[in-house]
Amino acid sequence: MTAKFLTFSYENVTRYGLLHDRGITDLSRLYGDRWPGLREVIEAGALNELATSAPRLVDFREEDIRYEIPVTNPEKIICVGVNFPDRNEEYKDGQAAPSNPSLFIRFPRSFVGHKEALIRPPESLQLDYEGEIVLVIGKAGRRISQENALDHVAALTLCNEGTIRDWVRHAKFNVTQGKNFDRTGSIGPWLIPFTSEDQIRDIALSTRVNGEVRQQDRTSRMIFSFKKIISYISTFTTLVPGDVIVTGTPTGAGARFDPPVWLTPGDVIEVAADGLGVLRNSVVDEDLT
Amino acid sequence: MTAKFLTFSYENVTRYGLLHDRGITDLSRLYGDRWPGLREVIEAGALNELATSAPRLVDFREEDIRYEIPVTNPEKIICVGVNFPDRNEEYKDGQAAPSNPSLFIRFPRSFVGHKEALIRPPESLQLDYEGEIVLVIGKAGRRISQENALDHVAALTLCNEGTIRDWVRHAKFNVTQGKNFDRTGSIGPWLIPFTSEDQIRDIALSTRVNGEVRQQDRTSRMIFSFKKIISYISTFTTLVPGDVIVTGTPTGAGARFDPPVWLTPGDVIEVAADGLGVLRNSVVDEDLT
Repeated sequence: MTAKFLTFSYENVTRYGLLHDRGITDLSRLYGDRWPGLREVIEAGALNELATSAPRLVDFREEDIRYEIPVTNPEKIICVGVNFPDRNEEYKDGQAAPSNPSLFIRFPRSFVGHKEALIRPPESLQLDYEGEIVLVIGKAGRRISQENALDHVAALTLCNEGTIRDWVRHAKFNVTQGKNFDRTGSIGPWLIPFTSEDQIRDIALSTRVNGEVRQQDRTSRMIFSFKKIISYISTFTTLVPGDVIVTGTPTGAGARFDPPVWLTPGDVIEVAADGLGVLRNSVVDEDLT
Repeated sequence: MTAKFLTFSYENVTRYGLLHDRGITDLSRLYGDRWPGLREVIEAGALNELATSAPRLVDFREEDIRYEIPVTNPEKIICVGVNFPDRNEEYKDGQAAPSNPSLFIRFPRSFVGHKEALIRPPESLQLDYEGEIVLVIGKAGRRISQENALDHVAALTLCNEGTIRDWVRHAKFNVTQGKNFDRTGSIGPWLIPFTSEDQIRDIALSTRVNGEVRQQDRTSRMIFSFKKIISYISTFTTLVPGDVIVTGTPTGAGARFDPPVWLTPGDVIEVAADGLGVLRNSVVDEDLT
C-alpha cells in the first residue's frame, strides 16, 4: 500500500508522520532528532526507506490532528500558469500559446493544510480555486535535462492554488499579490513518494465545488510536461530538496464563468487526482476581531 | 558613528559581525549561541543594542573575508517594479502610471554579497543592473497603516537588482525567471540600523558602471513611498522580521539605452546611496567546467 506522509499539529506542536489504516505514526518522535521535518527526510533521501520500514503505530487518530502543508519550510514554491488546453484561450487576448511556462512564486504562508478553511479576506469577494498537481524535489540540480528530470522528484501531492482574482491584476505587472494573500490556498493532503512515471503520466485531475465538477482534465494533455517544467526552471535557479513545484490548473476556474462564480463562506472545494487522494477545504471569512 | 552589520564567510564558514575602522568584530563568536544569524538578531530586536554595546574587536580583517548577503535566509524577498519618474514611460506601452506597485519575488540564491562577482549565464548576453534601496523588516505585521509603517523597519541596505533582461519576458506572464538566475544580483554591503525617517526621506541613489553614472535619482521622487510599499504589501501577506523589500530602481538601466548596453565580464557596478555605503560588484561569465 502507498505510504502517506503528512505534516500535522497536535496541541499546537508541529510533527510529521505516516497515515495508515489504523491511525497516524508519529515519525517526529521516532526520527525527529535526525530529521526535524519532511524537508530534511527528503534531503536525506530517506522517504522511500521510511515508507517501507517505519512501524505502523497508532500515536494519533486522524480526527485529533490538524493538517499542515506537507513541507512547511521549502526554499521555494514555484507555480506554473496557463498549462492546460483552452487555458490560453480563456485569456481572450489573441496571443498565441506561449513557448515557455509562465512562473510565479507563492509563500508558504499563503497556504493551509488539508481540511483547514481557506480565508476570504475583507479586501475582495473574488476568492477562486485552481486544482493542481504538485511535485516535490528530492535531489538538487541545475540545468537538469528533460531526460533526467524525474530523477529529481521525491514526492507528489495536490494544491488548491486559491487566488484573489482582482488582485492578480492590481498593478502593471505580475500576479504576486493576488497569489499571496495569507491562507488562501492549500497543499496536501499528504506526500506520496514518487517511484515511477506511471504515477503521473496520464492521470485524471479534477476540482469539485460543493460536489459539482468544475475542473477536469488529464496530465497527458498538459502544455508543458512535468519533465519540461523541471528542466526549464532549473535553467535559471538551482532546485534543492523540498522545493515545491505547482504545475498548473485545467480550464474551469470560477473566473472563467460568465458571469464569474466566486467562492463564498461554507463552500467546500475538493481537488482530486488518481493515486494522490482528495484535498478538501472549506471557506470562511477572515476573522478581523 | 553608524554601525555596519555584515554577514560574511571565512574559510567557508558563514558568520556575522560588525565592521569598524580597525576591522571586523566576530559577533557570531560572541552571540551566535543566542542568535545564529542577523535574521535572529533582528527578530530579537537586538540590532540597536548590539550597535551601541558590542565591543569593537579585530577578529578579522576586511580583506580576508568574503561578503554574503546580509540576511542569508529571509522568509521572503519582495521587489517593487516601476517606482521612479520616467520608469513607466520607458515601457512605451501607452499605459498610465499604475495605481499600485508591481511586485515580484526573488530567491536569496539569485544574489551575491558585496565584492563578489555577478554571474553572466551562458543562456543570455543581456545581464543588466538596477540600483535600489532595501528595507529590512524588524517587527511583524499585517495590514500595517502608512502612519505606522516605518516602525516595522529594522535596517537599510542596497541592492543591485541584476536582471537577465530577455528572460523577463520569456513567457506570457511574470518576470520570475529573468529575475532569478543564480547569483545575478547583489545585496549589501552591510545593514545600517534604521533609527529615523531622515535616513531615507530624501537621499540620493545612484548606479555607476565602470565609473560612469547611469542611474541617479532621489528617494523623495519615488512613485510609491517606503510607507506605501510596506502598507500595501502587508495588506496581503504578513511581514515578519528579516523580510527584505527591494524598493525600485531609477531610470537608466542598460535596457533603456538605444541600442541597449549590457554588462560584460570585467565591468564594475557600484550602487551608492547617502549613508548606506557603496555596493560594488564585478561581472564574470559563468564557469561551466
